[in-house]
Amino acid sequence: MTVKQLSLPELAAACGELGVPGVGLWREPVRAYGLDATAELVRAAGLTVTTLCRGGFLTAVDPGERAAALADNRRAVEEAATLGTDTLVLVSGGLPAGSRDLHGARERIADALGELGPYAERHGVRLAVEPLHPMYAADRCVVSTLTQALDLAERFPAHQVGVAVDTYHLWWDDRAPAQIARAGAGGRIHTFQLADWTTPLPAGVLDGRGQLGDGAVDLREWRGYVEAAGYTGPIEVELFNEGLWARDGHEVLKETAMRFVEHVID
Amino acid sequence: MTVKQLSLPELAAACGELGVPGVGLWREPVRAYGLDATAELVRAAGLTVTTLCRGGFLTAVDPGERAAALADNRRAVEEAATLGTDTLVLVSGGLPAGSRDLHGARERIADALGELGPYAERHGVRLAVEPLHPMYAADRCVVSTLTQALDLAERFPAHQVGVAVDTYHLWWDDRAPAQIARAGAGGRIHTFQLADWTTPLPAGVLDGRGQLGDGAVDLREWRGYVEAAGYTGPIEVELFNEGLWARDGHEVLKETAMRFVEHVID
Repeated sequence: MTVKQLSLPELAAACGELGVPGVGLWREPVRAYGLDATAELVRAAGLTVTTLCRGGFLTAVDPGERAAALADNRRAVEEAATLGTDTLVLVSGGLPAGSRDLHGARERIADALGELGPYAERHGVRLAVEPLHPMYAADRCVVSTLTQALDLAERFPAHQVGVAVDTYHLWWDDRAPAQIARAGAGGRIHTFQLADWTTPLPAGVLDGRGQLGDGAVDLREWRGYVEAAGYTGPIEVELFNEGLWARDGHEVLKETAMRFVEHVID
Repeated sequence: MTVKQLSLPELAAACGELGVPGVGLWREPVRAYGLDATAELVRAAGLTVTTLCRGGFLTAVDPGERAAALADNRRAVEEAATLGTDTLVLVSGGLPAGSRDLHGARERIADALGELGPYAERHGVRLAVEPLHPMYAADRCVVSTLTQALDLAERFPAHQVGVAVDTYHLWWDDRAPAQIARAGAGGRIHTFQLADWTTPLPAGVLDGRGQLGDGAVDLREWRGYVEAAGYTGPIEVELFNEGLWARDGHEVLKETAMRFVEHVID
């Protein structure tokens, strides 16, 4: 999504040129290009699919909506397996219309994880519950902290349910480093994602994620937290940013790779 | 600020008509009307000044900026005393330009509280550290949770430093109710403020606070938390909302009072 202006073949080629070994994919562009065609494309390019984004939205009370959400998540699991990734990232969902019950919504997520976890395991896929920044708690994700995500995940085996650690969502939380250690000790860091925090936030607060190095997050420090917790998996960069999307995709991908080296690795 | 379109005399008169017994004031309109004139106005109207907003912005590293901030906060203390309120609300400040050190910024706030607390006490004023929603952590307030605010406040006597509990900033946090109990046990709930959480958020995320009852917050539940913690002080309604500001101020004040009865009291 960082360079959604690139087609999937352009993305695969550009990753190859830059030496980017893996890519996290979103379901919408995969569906548009074709699931099997995408799987073939990334395989031919030698690219690892690090994660598939995203399942989730598991907070509905209405039985019909709930059944539809579970069915959609089972499809997402199957898509992840077809793409060859072992990780499906979940954005849990916000409050149903008119509801003020955060606790109840979180419990419905737990119920859904209990149904989806074994299904995912049978397909060789792990679910990664992603805590989203508290500014999304009402309309997108009632799981706002890594603590809450782990409280949910730990009800299930780690090879079924873990967490996604994303600096954009967690950087403000002084409790998050200890929770990363907790997640690592349990083998539950299923992916690690980077974005920087820049202000002012845009209307709707969805597309204001900062290019690495442009904002308030000490990205190297957060890399240190996950590595100290034993994480050795891929590091994803996930930038939703209108400004980046308006630019040439190759240029943005190259800039992102260079920023990654400068602000995360070196 | 909920009805900043009203002049202070209009506000005082409207509060009298509606039976609103107290009002929280902001420094800017007080300064514009005149400090002594405002004090006289509210006294003549029989209005209690519940709090003065706001001091704070105590995170500067530069010695000159820091000295200026402390001097401004001492003036705010004096203004609070002149207005007859015992509570000055503090918005602690964000990260200095280019800094990524949240911990260091919080420590500088603690240092400043150590200087300002005794000064405030000599003027009969208490400081209320207000945790702001994590979406303001970079540019406005590095104190994002009630836990952090209490960790700061508890380094000082409760009659010098306490906290402001504001539903807009805390509603998403499942740890906040226990922290309200902690604050109440220590006599540190220095004010209780209400706003509802509505989406989508506007650009800059400053002026999107929802009218009571319009959003995701169970306001009655939060009133229950502070009352269970022993709080018997005033309940303030603080709505920064472009839509409300564009309407007739008397109408908005009346609506707010009715919403308060419907969603908080009854």
